Amino acid sequence: MSIQSRENLLQAAIRGIEPPAVRMVAGAEGLSPAVLLKLVAAGRAVIMQRDGKPPLGIGEGLRTKVNANVGTSADLIDPDGEVEKAMAAEKYGADTVTDLSMGGPIDEIFRRIKEATSVPLTTVPIYQAVAEKGSFSSITGGEILRTIRKQIGAGASSVVVHAAITLEMLVDLKRSKRIMGVVSKGGSFTSAWMLQKGEENPFLSHFDEICGVLAERDAVLSLGNTMRSGCISDPMDAVQVAEMEMNADLAKRANDLGVQVIVEGMGGHVRPDRIPEYVALYKRRTSFRPLFVAGPLPIDIGVGYDHISGSVGGAMAAGAGADYLCYITPSEHLALPDVGQVREGVVAFKIAAHIGDTMKYGPRLEDEMLARYRRVRDWENQFKLAIDADRAMEIRSRGGTDGCTMCGKYCAIAIMEDHLR
Amino acid sequence: MSIQSRENLLQAAIRGIEPPAVRMVAGAEGLSPAVLLKLVAAGRAVIMQRDGKPPLGIGEGLRTKVNANVGTSADLIDPDGEVEKAMAAEKYGADTVTDLSMGGPIDEIFRRIKEATSVPLTTVPIYQAVAEKGSFSSITGGEILRTIRKQIGAGASSVVVHAAITLEMLVDLKRSKRIMGVVSKGGSFTSAWMLQKGEENPFLSHFDEICGVLAERDAVLSLGNTMRSGCISDPMDAVQVAEMEMNADLAKRANDLGVQVIVEGMGGHVRPDRIPEYVALYKRRTSFRPLFVAGPLPIDIGVGYDHISGSVGGAMAAGAGADYLCYITPSEHLALPDVGQVREGVVAFKIAAHIGDTMKYGPRLEDEMLARYRRVRDWENQFKLAIDADRAMEIRSRGGTDGCTMCGKYCAIAIMEDHLR
Repeated sequence: MSIQSRENLLQAAIRGIEPPAVRMVAGAEGLSPAVLLKLVAAGRAVIMQRDGKPPLGIGEGLRTKVNANVGTSADLIDPDGEVEKAMAAEKYGADTVTDLSMGGPIDEIFRRIKEATSVPLTTVPIYQAVAEKGSFSSITGGEILRTIRKQIGAGASSVVVHAAITLEMLVDLKRSKRIMGVVSKGGSFTSAWMLQKGEENPFLSHFDEICGVLAERDAVLSLGNTMRSGCISDPMDAVQVAEMEMNADLAKRANDLGVQVIVEGMGGHVRPDRIPEYVALYKRRTSFRPLFVAGPLPIDIGVGYDHISGSVGGAMAAGAGADYLCYITPSEHLALPDVGQVREGVVAFKIAAHIGDTMKYGPRLEDEMLARYRRVRDWENQFKLAIDADRAMEIRSRGGTDGCTMCGKYCAIAIMEDHLR
Repeated sequence: MSIQSRENLLQAAIRGIEPPAVRMVAGAEGLSPAVLLKLVAAGRAVIMQRDGKPPLGIGEGLRTKVNANVGTSADLIDPDGEVEKAMAAEKYGADTVTDLSMGGPIDEIFRRIKEATSVPLTTVPIYQAVAEKGSFSSITGGEILRTIRKQIGAGASSVVVHAAITLEMLVDLKRSKRIMGVVSKGGSFTSAWMLQKGEENPFLSHFDEICGVLAERDAVLSLGNTMRSGCISDPMDAVQVAEMEMNADLAKRANDLGVQVIVEGMGGHVRPDRIPEYVALYKRRTSFRPLFVAGPLPIDIGVGYDHISGSVGGAMAAGAGADYLCYITPSEHLALPDVGQVREGVVAFKIAAHIGDTMKYGPRLEDEMLARYRRVRDWENQFKLAIDADRAMEIRSRGGTDGCTMCGKYCAIAIMEDHLR
């Protein structure tokens, strides 16, 4: 374990000292710094930091955040395109960007994404380790640590590790009646490594060392979720519960080692009627640590529109207490998204997050303001408040008239204002 | 009131006689005809009929249905375009189409939409009456009746009338603190007519005659909703409750006159945390008659993506018991939608309906089948089950390779199948 040269954010918060980042996040969220400090100290909220950029808070009492995944795949390598996607993601409101590149010059792609954005960046170290080795079997624990150190050193604010799977769970998984097995890519690499070598999880074996690296650089640990359901017919099974329990324990251990933690859970494909109950279970079992969910997708047949199905699932999850949503694009299950689909995905999940916040915290001022501008047909100010002003203007300009072509002179609002005056 | 030449569907159902349409709908829905017959007789389900086309059931125990609005506005008149939209709506799964044309040759547009589609069609008679008169003030009750008779005669399976507003409610509305007043176009015409003339609601004055026309032709009465909220900051107020109460009473009266009834309610803009409770209230207060909701939109700031916000609200409403969703397109609040936006709106609401059905009735077979095809990478059969197969194929073909460009050779499913075997 590395020796820490200075007290990091979590350690300061636990001692009741208010780091500048806490004040900044509290200001951005309209929360009292004292309240936020307590939430951070309790591990119920985390703060992602990036040199010279505004810090970002994720967790209890804070606005629900949205992550956008970008990055080359092994088959489709266009670094310029991925940088463009990261910029589009930030432009349309993604709170964080995760670079999942597995093809091409990965270090360079990350560096360029960093230069082009200002939001916190996340990586999944096993992706780069596998891509650079060409296979998972030849990777050593030492190499994983080196990759984590490199990515944190290059400026990642957070890394995802799949530490909560054991050989025993994989044996249970073999026996399970799941339709879909493992749909987490990082989780499948880690599992395949374990099964091929017959060795325990390398992230688990090196957990304290990983925490040392993160504590030193004040980076956030995201505890990955390997066992999530890959279709809504697969319920939360014993393996999923076992991973959740273990992630809950690892989260505590990481906090004790001075590392801020986000728990990835639930996510994947979940029957809509079970989303609130599963979220509540995760939050309770992980002592209300920040919960990161992918989607979830409440149905399987929305192929080509998984951003919409996912927006419904994400809104329900956020409303029930999830703190951080990983977006899904229209390309999910089909192809690597293009830049337009990244925009669609981000906006769909900004909508989900905002709906979730309205459920968690009650009505938000933006909606009331938009309604007031709508009533007086002040289009400019409506666009300013819209999640994606560009799209709203594109659609409206198609009409070409001063009024809205939907109703034209028969605008209900205008008619009633005339007659109710 | 017209003299009925034969017993209609509702009258037969009440006498326990099973009309062929009941058998056909029961077959399509996988329900016992005897159960459906009782639901129809109790007014808890309705059957929309169209000469020579399959009948459609809406209500309790049945799949949630989706309506798509098309039609010219006063400002944008392109009959070909509206026919194309109606065809696209049916192609992508709309269960019904409502023609709201207010410009151009309205009779001809309806006739052409009818020729081009096979789903039940709905009209809003006050729209055509106003469009043809040029203003609402000059319309008489007799003209409204003639328009209804004409539209039903031309083949409308259902008409919408805004009968549940009174002058007293409009006085209350003037005093209310709502941000948005009335956002229902048909409702605003009716209200303006009443306020301008100082006369009671013409749909209410002629209610029994309207029922006579519908009973004779076996058409479904849709009781419109004028007082729905136009923004999420406007809660369900006294005027909304008064309209709901009156619609509940009118529904009973119409049933007694041999007319099948759908109640429009809630809809519009509703805080997401209140959607389930409002749906439950409507269902209970209207004796569990089929509930038709527009959207609802759970936030106001999703301008340009109201189909996505509406999909979230529609899914929540359907899951809580709404039976029939009116779609919203990306153009809502901005412009008349184009044909691509009609497709987007229909698919977003098919997703909402399917999620709602999963909540109401539990998992559906289609999702499990899709997951099984996904597991074995059988793309053809996945596309067959997708809500919009064309879109799924478009996105996938962009990838160009045999595998999915998202993960390429690092497909989690494939890796785990190899290793868990």
